[in-house]
Amino acid sequence: MKNKKIKLSKIDPSSHPLCKNKEEALERTAELQKEIYDLLYLMFAHDHYSLLIVLHGIDTAGKDGAVRHIYDSGNPQGIKVFSFKRPSAEEFRHDFLWRCHRHTPESGLTTIFNRSYYEEVTTAQVHPEFLQEQRIPDELRKHPDFFKRRYHRINDFELLLSEKGTVVLKFFLHISKKEQKERLDDRLKDLSKNWKFSPDDVKERRHWDEYMDVFEEMLQNTSTEHAPWTVVPADHKWYRNYVISKTLVEKLRTLKMKFPKAPKA
Amino acid sequence: MKNKKIKLSKIDPSSHPLCKNKEEALERTAELQKEIYDLLYLMFAHDHYSLLIVLHGIDTAGKDGAVRHIYDSGNPQGIKVFSFKRPSAEEFRHDFLWRCHRHTPESGLTTIFNRSYYEEVTTAQVHPEFLQEQRIPDELRKHPDFFKRRYHRINDFELLLSEKGTVVLKFFLHISKKEQKERLDDRLKDLSKNWKFSPDDVKERRHWDEYMDVFEEMLQNTSTEHAPWTVVPADHKWYRNYVISKTLVEKLRTLKMKFPKAPKA
Repeated sequence: MKNKKIKLSKIDPSSHPLCKNKEEALERTAELQKEIYDLLYLMFAHDHYSLLIVLHGIDTAGKDGAVRHIYDSGNPQGIKVFSFKRPSAEEFRHDFLWRCHRHTPESGLTTIFNRSYYEEVTTAQVHPEFLQEQRIPDELRKHPDFFKRRYHRINDFELLLSEKGTVVLKFFLHISKKEQKERLDDRLKDLSKNWKFSPDDVKERRHWDEYMDVFEEMLQNTSTEHAPWTVVPADHKWYRNYVISKTLVEKLRTLKMKFPKAPKA
Repeated sequence: MKNKKIKLSKIDPSSHPLCKNKEEALERTAELQKEIYDLLYLMFAHDHYSLLIVLHGIDTAGKDGAVRHIYDSGNPQGIKVFSFKRPSAEEFRHDFLWRCHRHTPESGLTTIFNRSYYEEVTTAQVHPEFLQEQRIPDELRKHPDFFKRRYHRINDFELLLSEKGTVVLKFFLHISKKEQKERLDDRLKDLSKNWKFSPDDVKERRHWDEYMDVFEEMLQNTSTEHAPWTVVPADHKWYRNYVISKTLVEKLRTLKMKFPKAPKA
């Protein structure tokens, strides 16, 4: 199952292999957005498939921007966004997929997860102290395969969703350490972004290499046929949006959905 | 994974191999109930493990009686019961584990499922027309491995719970066709039970053999090390209660839980 081909260090976050430049990307993205609107409308009418979009990436990778972009492509009535922050006390008392499962999309609709259960195999690996707050018996928490088991449970869970008709598309927003520095500096300077700045962000930068290793391992272990990851070079926001739009359209087209006939009078 | 050893036709629903008679069963059950109370109290204090009890069986098999029996063994504050009836419109629009997952127990507590996602691989096999109400794309619903896939997803799901520290114990209440007839007749005669009688119950009796085949297949495919089924000969209520109590005690003892020390002042 392990997909060893994903090597983050081999992917340049500032590259844009599928588009010459910003102008071309913006033009094509605008076309794709129209098609996304139509395809999501068709999915709503067809009323059997649903769409779950999972966004993951380090702080400032552009998850909020990606949410806005996807949201702008569809009908607000058909798209729900969930931003998962620190788990509540109740959530800490359940299995690690519990809080996300309840927010999976119903037939016909789209849900975007801004962060997700993937924090539980990435941030939780870099900061194992987080696990201690979860009520997991010691013998299980200290098991050498603890995170490997979580990868398997994630793959199982996404298979459950896909066998119901939920299309699961996951985007890893890949930025460079240099780009992150610029974005953090921006947050400090720009009053409208200042609230997003936390001294923790700077502290987390010390763990950069560790995060990259853990991200790569996560991508290798959870990129499946039924729920693939797309690694998005995300230093350029216009390229990030283009890749996301293109991936959505290409996947939704394969469903070959048709408008149902009106019931006979 | 398939456990071919479970053969329902080889298990006499009126047998009571572990107890001579009713008197002995009641006496031993009373002892066991005291121990269950203590073990569940310890689990509450220990606050890492939890207990999920799943009850399954044909109409009149004694699920409600088993719920009362288990409930009486513990502290009402620590036990929740969920009786799953016909799914709601919202539930039909999600995967088949969605509505049950949200009600799984939090650390320290016990949950009893009176019926569960096992209806989705038993009743749904006997009555495939039920599946049409679920919003599952045709290509998935008509897949030859549709139920096989569900067995796998159930096993995965129960593994997720057990890796969190949830002990999953499943009881299949096995009654004879003759005993069912008597219980249905009782429902007609006894005013206090009359509300439970539905003409559907009688209609369902026509499918008896089909149900037995489907139950056996379900038991063979979903009895795992992490979430075993106990087939309970259930024509005698006193024996049913004894077997359930005994299974609970034996499993909870293996956890070797200890009371946590009081925090230092």
